[in-house]
Amino acid sequence: MGKDEQEIRRLVDTWMAATKAGDMETVLGLMTDDVVFLVPGRQPMSKSEFTAVSKPQSDAPAYQIDGKSEIQEIAVLGDWAFMWTRLRVSMTPAGGGAPMVRAGHTLSVLRKEGGRWRLARDANMLTAIPEK
Amino acid sequence: MGKDEQEIRRLVDTWMAATKAGDMETVLGLMTDDVVFLVPGRQPMSKSEFTAVSKPQSDAPAYQIDGKSEIQEIAVLGDWAFMWTRLRVSMTPAGGGAPMVRAGHTLSVLRKEGGRWRLARDANMLTAIPEK
Repeated sequence: MGKDEQEIRRLVDTWMAATKAGDMETVLGLMTDDVVFLVPGRQPMSKSEFTAVSKPQSDAPAYQIDGKSEIQEIAVLGDWAFMWTRLRVSMTPAGGGAPMVRAGHTLSVLRKEGGRWRLARDANMLTAIPEK
Repeated sequence: MGKDEQEIRRLVDTWMAATKAGDMETVLGLMTDDVVFLVPGRQPMSKSEFTAVSKPQSDAPAYQIDGKSEIQEIAVLGDWAFMWTRLRVSMTPAGGGAPMVRAGHTLSVLRKEGGRWRLARDANMLTAIPEK
């Protein structure tokens, strides 16, 4: 495995850990300023829009977010790369209760800026998994 | 606009026209043999699986498929490229009736093989648009 692929795998690990820890600043540092997030059923999101939807709402219940990303492919093309993963994210209400689980695939484009890989374009195809 | 971007735009036009005409052979010629199609709620599809789901079923009603792709970005990275689009696809029952419309975004990775651009990885985030 090349150095770039190792760094991209570390980016994914850091993203998941920072999301779990609620460390939004770290997550924002892992994406380019011109990042675009694409998801079903809504308009493309910029970095600031991603930040707005990711911040906990003061009047909403708090969740413990956990995720598992299984990288299916990484291809490095110079200072660009693409990757697709199988991703599973669970949100468990802090006050107890069954977790909401979403699972599916992602396809991402990454860019190396100043020697560091960052997420540049992201397609998220997760769907809700019915409770058992 | 560079030559590669022009060729990728032509690929999209050809794809839409061939899909509308039911010309599956042309569509299959526009993708790499190792293409991966990612959509919400199902397993990744290979070229043969894409072919299977795209072929009209003999016992299913026939549809007139039409689509409109608005390219939002194309970035050429040597022999690779990525692109994202806003896509709207309508399926109108051949026997009449209201069209089923799906709309949303796509994120695709393309590869130049033997001087020709082909679709290599595709994320499709279309969702059903309720009838008016």
